[in-house]
Amino acid sequence: MRAVFLAAGEGKRLRPYFNRPKPLVPLLGLSLIERNILSLRECGIKEFVVITGCYADAIEEYLGNGDKLGVEIKYLHNERWALGNGVTAYTFHQEYRPGEKFILMMSDHIFGLDLLKNFIAAAQKIKEDEILIAADRRLEKVYDLEECTKLKAEQDYALKLSKKLDDFNAVDCGLFIGTGALLEALSQAISREGYALTDGVNILAGSGRAKLHFVNDFWVDVDDQASYRHCEKMLLQSLVPAKDGFISHHLNRRFSLRMTRCMARTGITPNQVTLISFFVAAAAAFCFALGKNICGGLLAQLSSIIDGVDGEIARLKFQKSNYGGLFDSILDRYADFLIVTGIAYAWYSATSSPVALLVAAAALTGMPLSMLFKEKYHALTGKPFLPEQHDGIFRYLPANRDGRLFLIMLGGIFNLLPAALVILAVVAHGQALIRLYQARRML
Amino acid sequence: MRAVFLAAGEGKRLRPYFNRPKPLVPLLGLSLIERNILSLRECGIKEFVVITGCYADAIEEYLGNGDKLGVEIKYLHNERWALGNGVTAYTFHQEYRPGEKFILMMSDHIFGLDLLKNFIAAAQKIKEDEILIAADRRLEKVYDLEECTKLKAEQDYALKLSKKLDDFNAVDCGLFIGTGALLEALSQAISREGYALTDGVNILAGSGRAKLHFVNDFWVDVDDQASYRHCEKMLLQSLVPAKDGFISHHLNRRFSLRMTRCMARTGITPNQVTLISFFVAAAAAFCFALGKNICGGLLAQLSSIIDGVDGEIARLKFQKSNYGGLFDSILDRYADFLIVTGIAYAWYSATSSPVALLVAAAALTGMPLSMLFKEKYHALTGKPFLPEQHDGIFRYLPANRDGRLFLIMLGGIFNLLPAALVILAVVAHGQALIRLYQARRML
Repeated sequence: MRAVFLAAGEGKRLRPYFNRPKPLVPLLGLSLIERNILSLRECGIKEFVVITGCYADAIEEYLGNGDKLGVEIKYLHNERWALGNGVTAYTFHQEYRPGEKFILMMSDHIFGLDLLKNFIAAAQKIKEDEILIAADRRLEKVYDLEECTKLKAEQDYALKLSKKLDDFNAVDCGLFIGTGALLEALSQAISREGYALTDGVNILAGSGRAKLHFVNDFWVDVDDQASYRHCEKMLLQSLVPAKDGFISHHLNRRFSLRMTRCMARTGITPNQVTLISFFVAAAAAFCFALGKNICGGLLAQLSSIIDGVDGEIARLKFQKSNYGGLFDSILDRYADFLIVTGIAYAWYSATSSPVALLVAAAALTGMPLSMLFKEKYHALTGKPFLPEQHDGIFRYLPANRDGRLFLIMLGGIFNLLPAALVILAVVAHGQALIRLYQARRML
Repeated sequence: MRAVFLAAGEGKRLRPYFNRPKPLVPLLGLSLIERNILSLRECGIKEFVVITGCYADAIEEYLGNGDKLGVEIKYLHNERWALGNGVTAYTFHQEYRPGEKFILMMSDHIFGLDLLKNFIAAAQKIKEDEILIAADRRLEKVYDLEECTKLKAEQDYALKLSKKLDDFNAVDCGLFIGTGALLEALSQAISREGYALTDGVNILAGSGRAKLHFVNDFWVDVDDQASYRHCEKMLLQSLVPAKDGFISHHLNRRFSLRMTRCMARTGITPNQVTLISFFVAAAAAFCFALGKNICGGLLAQLSSIIDGVDGEIARLKFQKSNYGGLFDSILDRYADFLIVTGIAYAWYSATSSPVALLVAAAALTGMPLSMLFKEKYHALTGKPFLPEQHDGIFRYLPANRDGRLFLIMLGGIFNLLPAALVILAVVAHGQALIRLYQARRML
């Protein structure tokens, strides 16, 4: 399936802030249209048609033929863009292949990845003379309802669409599966001087051919500064993964998402962030060895927070890679080893107690077990192990990496590092044995 | 697809050794027919029809309705079994569902699992008026060629089959995909007093309807004591997995397969073997701590060998489970920790050298990295990491568990445990870093 972007408008309201065409407005490190292209690439779409108008040259120059995004981009130009977005959408008839279904998307709306995946999967439900409209009936969640195109839905068909509709029960998200029927309807509307996309869609709605797909994930029409901020917020929230541990979910992400927001604008790569997190942990270990416990504790926790940023940036900027996942895992283990060794070194230097050695050995051996268990579970079942879900009541044990480093921070701040190390060792081995016991039921 | 077993014959030649019907002869812990049913279950076959003759009651009593094997078994009885196996096969017409393709199998032939999987996948290639015959043209590999039914193949069709054929280029393996055409041909053959399965098959071969599937895996017609031994050998060899390390593949399996051969006859479960392996490793650790280095070294290596037996028994007796895989992984880690701790304890007690502690810490942290890497790789790519293949020249490093425990055995025997521990630590971390470097290309 091909995707068609409407990128012809002037985008007056964001213009003062960015001084560039709206599709090229940068948001968390990617321009709006780039993010849409990369999101659709994640859904398997490789061919794109961008219909330009007002800022044709700037957009073509920026995106090129799509090579650098790993896709193929063609351009169509609509000289009469000022008439309305229906005329722009109709321009696609020059490129249309008979019988084809295509994705039609506003280039300045941003969609959650799950929303796009589900919508594209639903494309097969419509007949050749119908269209599919992504619609949202969670009206209380819709951002800036006033600006939206409302629609009256009866079951999963639209009866009528308009910006000014009193009796509505959903809004249109600016995302469609188009067919030849849409192009015909647009042509018909234009001949009657109806130049908006809505005019064409209303012709189909009037004859019961505008099917609806109700969405459950976020989407934002980036139209002004407020919606721009809202979109940033929604995208950042979407980066928190289900496999997060308790501390990570409830504490670390508050900070890591802010860091990601700043770093996304730079060219820093996820693997570079992984390295930074490792060096911060190494610095923490060094502090512990020197007896600078508070500093060590804070650095350990900082490293734990930065450990979330690499994945966030990778997901946010479509830079996820298997190698990145592996690199992060192995470096995390070394960071853990260094920190525990630093703490044990200081403890043993001060006391010469063999207990310090024993506890250190227990901590060093216990720590990798959490990851070992999770990866083995994933390899065996094909599904990730989710501590928040699978560990039941024991998810509150600080035995995952986020919990362990939090414990070490507390130990550092309150000058109770030996106690923290004992708890860490007990909890790590305890969790491994509990999981082994519980796995009998799960596997 | 249903599977039909011919289990009507007398099986005179094995009778003196086992005093039971041939399909019920035990071989490595399972009767011949049980192994065939469980092998086919692994290929997704759930419905079985067993055609009995000579020892109908004994077979029915033994297998029951299939519940305990997790399948459904129906029985048909052929009173005229003594006439020939064509009459027995024809009995299936009572149960035949029009248009059905079915697997037809001798209950006393044993097949490699890959052979069965490939053969069943090939079933879709034949038309409704054809049959598919598993045939072997690797004549030099065929066991007891003289006893086999030979066939003359032209491309992938059989022209003629017979035990006494001078001009042949393949043999029939006793495994077929049958159709209604086979039952018709059998009926026709019987009416002409041709009572052997080969008589019916020859009618189809004569009209170009006996398609061949050439096999590449092992199969054995268990007919006498010699073929019984041969079958044991082939089955045991098939248990060695591709992910084996160097020492495991070239040394440990020689012993573990022998142990498996003995243990398979008992009711011992794979998880029980995992526990035994763990306790032997714990005993090794204890010996090291007491300075009984030779004894410790030998026990460590014994534990490593037994560590292969659990998986072998699981595969051999269709007792594989995700839980078993997880249990084995975690207990192996604890066994490793104990052994290194035992060695380090003795070293430090004797010398009070902090080097012992440092080396022990490096060994304890390095050891889990091999598994961590492999499981993460598996989880990320969906494919297992195969040291023999992916590690390239570094596969000879003793950094996988088999290599590590072998190194420890050498250290124990030659009283060089500190050196072994140093090598182990260096090699384990070295391998992790090398893999991390090489993974850039692999992922």
